Amino acid sequence: MINLSNLTRDGKMFMLAYDQGLEHGPVDFNEFSVDPQNILEVGASAKVTCFALHKGIAEKYYTNSSYSKSIPLILKMNGKTSYVKDIPYSPLLATVDEAIELGASAVGYTVYVGSPRQDEMFREFGSLVKEAHKKNLPVVAWMYPRSLQITEETLDVTAYAARIGLELGADIVKLKPHTDLEGMKWIVKCAGKAQVVWQGGTKTTEQEFLDQVKIDIESGGMGIAVGRNVWQSENPNDICKKVSTIIWSE
Amino acid sequence: MINLSNLTRDGKMFMLAYDQGLEHGPVDFNEFSVDPQNILEVGASAKVTCFALHKGIAEKYYTNSSYSKSIPLILKMNGKTSYVKDIPYSPLLATVDEAIELGASAVGYTVYVGSPRQDEMFREFGSLVKEAHKKNLPVVAWMYPRSLQITEETLDVTAYAARIGLELGADIVKLKPHTDLEGMKWIVKCAGKAQVVWQGGTKTTEQEFLDQVKIDIESGGMGIAVGRNVWQSENPNDICKKVSTIIWSE
Amino acid sequence: MINLSNLTRDGKMFMLAYDQGLEHGPVDFNEFSVDPQNILEVGASAKVTCFALHKGIAEKYYTNSSYSKSIPLILKMNGKTSYVKDIPYSPLLATVDEAIELGASAVGYTVYVGSPRQDEMFREFGSLVKEAHKKNLPVVAWMYPRSLQITEETLDVTAYAARIGLELGADIVKLKPHTDLEGMKWIVKCAGKAQVVWQGGTKTTEQEFLDQVKIDIESGGMGIAVGRNVWQSENPNDICKKVSTIIWSE
Amino acid sequence: MINLSNLTRDGKMFMLAYDQGLEHGPVDFNEFSVDPQNILEVGASAKVTCFALHKGIAEKYYTNSSYSKSIPLILKMNGKTSYVKDIPYSPLLATVDEAIELGASAVGYTVYVGSPRQDEMFREFGSLVKEAHKKNLPVVAWMYPRSLQITEETLDVTAYAARIGLELGADIVKLKPHTDLEGMKWIVKCAGKAQVVWQGGTKTTEQEFLDQVKIDIESGGMGIAVGRNVWQSENPNDICKKVSTIIWSE
Amino acid sequence: MINLSNLTRDGKMFMLAYDQGLEHGPVDFNEFSVDPQNILEVGASAKVTCFALHKGIAEKYYTNSSYSKSIPLILKMNGKTSYVKDIPYSPLLATVDEAIELGASAVGYTVYVGSPRQDEMFREFGSLVKEAHKKNLPVVAWMYPRSLQITEETLDVTAYAARIGLELGADIVKLKPHTDLEGMKWIVKCAGKAQVVWQGGTKTTEQEFLDQVKIDIESGGMGIAVGRNVWQSENPNDICKKVSTIIWSE
Repeated sequence: MINLSNLTRDGKMFMLAYDQGLEHGPVDFNEFSVDPQNILEVGASAKVTCFALHKGIAEKYYTNSSYSKSIPLILKMNGKTSYVKDIPYSPLLATVDEAIELGASAVGYTVYVGSPRQDEMFREFGSLVKEAHKKNLPVVAWMYPRSLQITEETLDVTAYAARIGLELGADIVKLKPHTDLEGMKWIVKCAGKAQVVWQGGTKTTEQEFLDQVKIDIESGGMGIAVGRNVWQSENPNDICKKVSTIIWSE
Repeated sequence: MINLSNLTRDGKMFMLAYDQGLEHGPVDFNEFSVDPQNILEVGASAKVTCFALHKGIAEKYYTNSSYSKSIPLILKMNGKTSYVKDIPYSPLLATVDEAIELGASAVGYTVYVGSPRQDEMFREFGSLVKEAHKKNLPVVAWMYPRSLQITEETLDVTAYAARIGLELGADIVKLKPHTDLEGMKWIVKCAGKAQVVWQGGTKTTEQEFLDQVKIDIESGGMGIAVGRNVWQSENPNDICKKVSTIIWSE
Repeated sequence: MINLSNLTRDGKMFMLAYDQGLEHGPVDFNEFSVDPQNILEVGASAKVTCFALHKGIAEKYYTNSSYSKSIPLILKMNGKTSYVKDIPYSPLLATVDEAIELGASAVGYTVYVGSPRQDEMFREFGSLVKEAHKKNLPVVAWMYPRSLQITEETLDVTAYAARIGLELGADIVKLKPHTDLEGMKWIVKCAGKAQVVWQGGTKTTEQEFLDQVKIDIESGGMGIAVGRNVWQSENPNDICKKVSTIIWSE
Repeated sequence: MINLSNLTRDGKMFMLAYDQGLEHGPVDFNEFSVDPQNILEVGASAKVTCFALHKGIAEKYYTNSSYSKSIPLILKMNGKTSYVKDIPYSPLLATVDEAIELGASAVGYTVYVGSPRQDEMFREFGSLVKEAHKKNLPVVAWMYPRSLQITEETLDVTAYAARIGLELGADIVKLKPHTDLEGMKWIVKCAGKAQVVWQGGTKTTEQEFLDQVKIDIESGGMGIAVGRNVWQSENPNDICKKVSTIIWSE
Repeated sequence: MINLSNLTRDGKMFMLAYDQGLEHGPVDFNEFSVDPQNILEVGASAKVTCFALHKGIAEKYYTNSSYSKSIPLILKMNGKTSYVKDIPYSPLLATVDEAIELGASAVGYTVYVGSPRQDEMFREFGSLVKEAHKKNLPVVAWMYPRSLQITEETLDVTAYAARIGLELGADIVKLKPHTDLEGMKWIVKCAGKAQVVWQGGTKTTEQEFLDQVKIDIESGGMGIAVGRNVWQSENPNDICKKVSTIIWSE
């Protein structure tokens, strides 16, 4: 089994995701968060356990920086823009060899479960797992159900997404959290030995966000992946501290 | 000719299939069957002659386990989710080299006969046969007729599916059983030197299931592949014993 | 120029085609003809000059058999089922290296002339010619016009098909025969140095069949390719003898 | 810059094109012209400066013949039939290595400018230029505008086609001639250092044909490519002589 | 980080773009500008800091010329014609190795952001970045938003395009300028460490053009890329001088 200790602390993950510049565009940013340097600094101060970045950001801001010595990188291997809607598909942008050269400790890939182009992503993901595991790199699967048949991401849908990640060979599955704790625990069971990381999603109130993080950790998941709820916050360092307290003190 | 003795006992096969987590999702599972470890334990106790697993489950639960020493593995090489309906196609998720590294003794591939994307699966299956036979690995073809022209899988349709498997180079064809014994025998003849394994299908009553297994064996088929009728049963060990009695005592 | 003497006797070809199990299904077979062993035996007794088989049949019945020493094999490299109708395309199922390992003396490929997917078959056929000629293997082109624009395969259509075979690099073109002898001779001229083999087609009365074979040979074609008119006959050996008499005594 | 002297005499080209058997079919042929041998003989007698042939004709009639010592070959690398109409695309049928083995001195490729599949042809043409130039083989581009937006091939359309050939890396562009001499000169300027060869087109009267050849040469083009106006003529040798007089005496 | 000093002077870029012959056709040209030699001469006299050319023009006019010693080349790697409208896609025409052999100092690639075929361009661009950076070649991304959802290229749209270039690994992004200086500065921030070069666009009056260049430089962009506003001008040398004054004296 692939070792995940490099990406975690005491077995828990606090991932700072910063791939939104490609996935959503600068509408997510302000004068502070538009600069990758600022986000890396936030993550380093907060001692997050890993970053998730696209290759352009990695190469120009992370690879030869001091951050590359303190915080491990999950290189996002595929990506798309918000202009792609009806038939979601996210093409590969990098190879495992590139990931290693950029200093990545793991690779990430988004699977749009249920998309009419699911087959292409399954094939590419299968190939990515093969290449990454050959080099002992963990594979993190962003499992996003998107289908005309899926009008709402219910617990059952997320549970299926979790299981697909396990069956396809993911080491970590990034999933949408729910508020039903028992349902969350069933999802974690469906993921089996693939570890669950719950996504942060769009910006909410601090209290709502922290309440969800508590459920996330209680569910048995390995941790959380946060972006906008950190760097769209007025005090990113403060919110990071509160999140860390929940993750490591519970 | 590829040697099948590794996958059989006294020339008969009892395959325990556990690829439903990907193909159908956790709706097939309960608290017991959701855990791959439990299913492997059932199979080992029942001395099934082989498992069929996807690569993620194989890598995390089978490859370095004690099960890999007692029960041979058929690695399912392609897979899809239940969200794919109208134009069934199941992409390749692994290579023959990966199968060997995971400890597989054979490879499995699903062909959706009659699908508008049949051509792609034929091509990939042809390539898989080439690679597997080069390494002396048997190829098991899951032959599933799916076409707008096929409103019902009649005996004739299954017979055609059986023959296609033979013509394309399969060593074993997994087929839908029928209740007409003479028809079953004709299907076995159409498959020629490709051995027939009858699928178990959805959960039925124990009696219905065992009656069908008797016909399956009487037809001249090499054996059966079962999943849900075993691990959705209240007593999996018990039903496995009854199946074994039919297979090896008749 | 590729040497064709291996596939012919006194410059004439009598090909026994047995690819119908894939192309049409078991509906073409009875208890006798469903078994490839029986067909190979018919061909060997009748001293046909070559077999045409798909790779699955070749590997399991021909390659290490006594037939491989007496009757040369044309390996059919692509194939499809009768479920494929509107946009005919037949994918590659094997490589030239596989053909050689299976003991083939030539390779065969079906081109659906005029199909919306003609381009893919042209490209694959071009590549097949390159690989086969590198290894001194003749290439036999099954030239089947199939197009919404082609409502009937007239003499002109067959003549075009013959010429396409020549231009693309085929050594032998398998074509639909006509009853007009002068038209048949023009088709042979259009094929130029590519040799013409006339197909047998669906089962007709013995007399009709033999009358056509006479025209086939008189046209200047190199020979015939027969399947159903031999092995759907009540006396395959007898009809083979009559065919041989026409081919070699005229 | 690629040297074109091998394909020309005193800097002028007289190409005899004989790819119509594939592109149009035997409807273009009579008892004389259906035989490639006859056409090669016409070309040799007339001392044309090069032939354009598909690989099947090249391999069986040219490569090891005496013609290969006297008349250089442009191997047509892609081709289609007249059944392909709405979305013209012509797939690659050969590689540069094959062209060299067949004794070719240059390679030819048809680009259907404006076709919805233009992108595929641009990519393949780009790759062909790379491979051919690596081996010092000139590349001749058959530039054929075909688009729903192009209802008529005006001077502007041909000028654009000429320029595209230059920009993509062609050494010679084969274009449709016009009767407006000034327009023809502008087209030649648009082609820049890519040399222009004007196509012959469908059979016209001898006088019309020769009048056009005069304009072709006067325009500054490097020469002409003729097929049907030569070998559909009642006296091919005679018409070739008249063409040569125009090309080399003006 | 890739070094851009070769393509700039005192950190500023003045690119002369001449890829319009392929992208728009000869309608952009007059008797002067149709000849690539003239444009190269204009650029050399004006001491622009780099040219952008397609491979055909590069090979025949630049590579072994004196210009290749004084002005660096950005090889445009993909291209299309103006016939491609609804679903913009621009295929790769060359490889990084070809670019190097042609003497290029950088490679350029057009991404049609928001196109239904965006995925193919993202994948190809990702691969191009990998190959180019391996050889220390900068990558210039022509970022052109084109989508049914994008009826107008607003500031927000250009800002997203800029960011996409950064995220995908571009070293320089070529963008549409706006007249709103603050908006331009935000775009430059979104591009981060990817340098912004503003495109010249269609021919306007000299005053309008120069006013825009002033804003371009003031925005913090690295420079401009001009084509038609230079070589469609009555006095290309004069306008180049004025542009240089703005770029290097502000």
